[in-house]
Amino acid sequence: MSELVKPEIPGGFKDYLPKEQIPRIKILRIIEEVYQLFGFLPLDTPEVEKWSVLTGNQPTDMRIYRVGLSGEAMDAKESLALRFDLTVPLARVVAAYGKDLVKPFKRYQLGRVFRGESSQRGRFNGFYQFDIDIVYSSSMLADAEIIAIIWTTLQALEIHNILIRVNNRKILNGLAEVVGINHKATAFFQVLDKLESIGIDGVITELARKPDNEFDETALALNHDQISQVEEFLVLSGSSEPLIAVEKFFNTRTAVGTEGVVEMYQVVRLTNELNVPQEKIKVDLSVARGLSYYTGPVFETTLLDLPDIGSIFSGGRFDGLVGRFSRTSVPATGASIGVDRLFEALRELGLLSKFASGITKVLVSVFDPKYTTEYLRTTTELRESGIETEIYLGNERSLKAQIAYALKQDIPFLVIAGPDEFQNKVWQVKNLRTRQQVTVPWSDVVDYIKQVL
Amino acid sequence: MSELVKPEIPGGFKDYLPKEQIPRIKILRIIEEVYQLFGFLPLDTPEVEKWSVLTGNQPTDMRIYRVGLSGEAMDAKESLALRFDLTVPLARVVAAYGKDLVKPFKRYQLGRVFRGESSQRGRFNGFYQFDIDIVYSSSMLADAEIIAIIWTTLQALEIHNILIRVNNRKILNGLAEVVGINHKATAFFQVLDKLESIGIDGVITELARKPDNEFDETALALNHDQISQVEEFLVLSGSSEPLIAVEKFFNTRTAVGTEGVVEMYQVVRLTNELNVPQEKIKVDLSVARGLSYYTGPVFETTLLDLPDIGSIFSGGRFDGLVGRFSRTSVPATGASIGVDRLFEALRELGLLSKFASGITKVLVSVFDPKYTTEYLRTTTELRESGIETEIYLGNERSLKAQIAYALKQDIPFLVIAGPDEFQNKVWQVKNLRTRQQVTVPWSDVVDYIKQVL
Repeated sequence: MSELVKPEIPGGFKDYLPKEQIPRIKILRIIEEVYQLFGFLPLDTPEVEKWSVLTGNQPTDMRIYRVGLSGEAMDAKESLALRFDLTVPLARVVAAYGKDLVKPFKRYQLGRVFRGESSQRGRFNGFYQFDIDIVYSSSMLADAEIIAIIWTTLQALEIHNILIRVNNRKILNGLAEVVGINHKATAFFQVLDKLESIGIDGVITELARKPDNEFDETALALNHDQISQVEEFLVLSGSSEPLIAVEKFFNTRTAVGTEGVVEMYQVVRLTNELNVPQEKIKVDLSVARGLSYYTGPVFETTLLDLPDIGSIFSGGRFDGLVGRFSRTSVPATGASIGVDRLFEALRELGLLSKFASGITKVLVSVFDPKYTTEYLRTTTELRESGIETEIYLGNERSLKAQIAYALKQDIPFLVIAGPDEFQNKVWQVKNLRTRQQVTVPWSDVVDYIKQVL
Repeated sequence: MSELVKPEIPGGFKDYLPKEQIPRIKILRIIEEVYQLFGFLPLDTPEVEKWSVLTGNQPTDMRIYRVGLSGEAMDAKESLALRFDLTVPLARVVAAYGKDLVKPFKRYQLGRVFRGESSQRGRFNGFYQFDIDIVYSSSMLADAEIIAIIWTTLQALEIHNILIRVNNRKILNGLAEVVGINHKATAFFQVLDKLESIGIDGVITELARKPDNEFDETALALNHDQISQVEEFLVLSGSSEPLIAVEKFFNTRTAVGTEGVVEMYQVVRLTNELNVPQEKIKVDLSVARGLSYYTGPVFETTLLDLPDIGSIFSGGRFDGLVGRFSRTSVPATGASIGVDRLFEALRELGLLSKFASGITKVLVSVFDPKYTTEYLRTTTELRESGIETEIYLGNERSLKAQIAYALKQDIPFLVIAGPDEFQNKVWQVKNLRTRQQVTVPWSDVVDYIKQVL
């Protein structure tokens, strides 16, 4: 006899057993319905992509899983790999099928992504993202639509106490220009992005930090005047009209910055016209979104009741979408839900129970196997009328054990019959929530259950 | 500027663009609803599993993709790998969470599986399976339920002209016993399984084949008497009462064979009580299902209008489910849909168009950008009443181009307004299927579209 194997799941991955998967599929369905409501269409791509596609053949900090057959060289440039997000596959699809796609291309995609990194709160080596993107539209209305989708989705999930913090990369580019640090813009934005976590003093310390050695490229070494300008800029988020304040701050000093302000005016106005309550949207000049590929509006969602959980639905405009595949510029904007983090947030907010009720509605108990024919007839009748029904398939003979099974599965109704009932051509229908039991004639049982469901 | 990368998908993998993904998600939803109707609950497990879990640390013919980070030894026993079916992950879940699972455990699971093999018709290196299994029930009612699900699912997809061919591994074990070839049962069953493709003469030739050398373990080298018995057995499928005929054939020669016949009587009777038309079920003594792990009833679905496409929904009982993880015997029965093959079948049967209509119902055209506020108001009103609506986000200004967009997306209604309409506070609602255009007052547009949808 061969040695037993441990039934272990790989570290950083997760099984979703029915108790968890039932609310998950309901929540994912609600999100999908909102995406469809806004006219987005589904796309699916494989988890496996080419290494060259995922990395653009550039060195990467991302710990990407490689895929190959035994004996293959796994470090080859041509190897396969597991996607780490859904944006690169979208870019590949746009580059590959571009001319056949209906434009604008508005797609949603749900899928697992993979990162070989140590896990953090609500994140794993494998985790789901649910993305939405609009490709081939440079209109600010597209960005406003994405913000409206974020708002509508969270409303549909009954998460009301949120703040969508918006900014624009062009405004930050404008600041970098004014401060004179645009040669290190990405490192600069990454420091600004930390404002919420490390505070203004932390940001100032980081901005002033001098390089440890000649290879330290992240040190910005801003001088006193430069830092004063950054401080002056960041406090504008708190003014009553931050956009007017930023416009004044820029004055004529930066064309790109002013362009960013104009875009922001448009985005904010359009979200208003899309019925997003304006108190839910906040211009926050520190929002930068670490990734270097954003080019215009950027947005993050803060759950005000769970400030520590981080952004659960964020995104922005990235007009260099297909850059690694083509010299063409293809405008795109979108956002991504970290599904596992959202799920964790719903749990912590006590909202998960709203989606947790069982799917099966009726258990036909097998009280006496000699009546199986009759049990099956009613099971089939209930199913044919669209009621989720199971016949008890376990080995327990007692009614008590079968009731326990129904309770564990959260099945609300139990249909029971023994010799007396068969003689009288009736069923006992037990409501396991109210514990009430009703005697119903055979011919009425489907209608009765339909009515009480 | 860095070198461009080709936007290529790995060979043997597939993208599902919206045109294909829209009918796919509808079809998958229909299947899921049938599974739920029968009281099955959703499970999700990662694509990535441990190599030891997938292989049981045994040598395997399956070309399994390994997964690892750059620099890791990819041939190690401890490496990660991509699942090649959904049954091994189910076994892992049952072995790992067994005592916490509600029993019987009835789960469905949809997911992509991966095989590093050359592709065949409707199959790829990555393809979707949609499985359903009942664990912890040894009752033949569980097998009958699986057959009823196969029937109900294909009915729901409007595939009516089918034959569910059923057999029982115990009957085949009985035959092997009678013939005296049970030491090579798996190789023997694999030859029987070919009856449909190579015919009776082909089967006889294979059964008689003598080993080429001492290492040739698949050669059965049956003698004339043995082959006569196999022939006598196989023709029984064609008799009017095959089970009675098999019972007579076995007589008292094989206990396990007779047990198989008894199980078959039960399964067939129970499917009848579950309302599966009996002309749709055929006892076919050549159905063996190649895999060695089946232990009881086995079933395959033949599409009579597409005999060459192979079985699209097949399965059986495998009571050794958790064998590699535990000495406990856990009974299980189930079936699996090859989703891509099913999809191909629906296409060839001309049934795909039934599921192909677009999701978005209304396009609000942007006739004159100065009225964007009004366009957005109506867009939002339509969405708030649950109607899938998009506002045109493209760059084309002409109505003709916007109509072309709606037609390509299969959007049935177009809402249009220019200066005249705004003056009269009306919308033009154009039905793109009938080409009729109706003038509707602002306040009635939502109700009007709801009514005509």
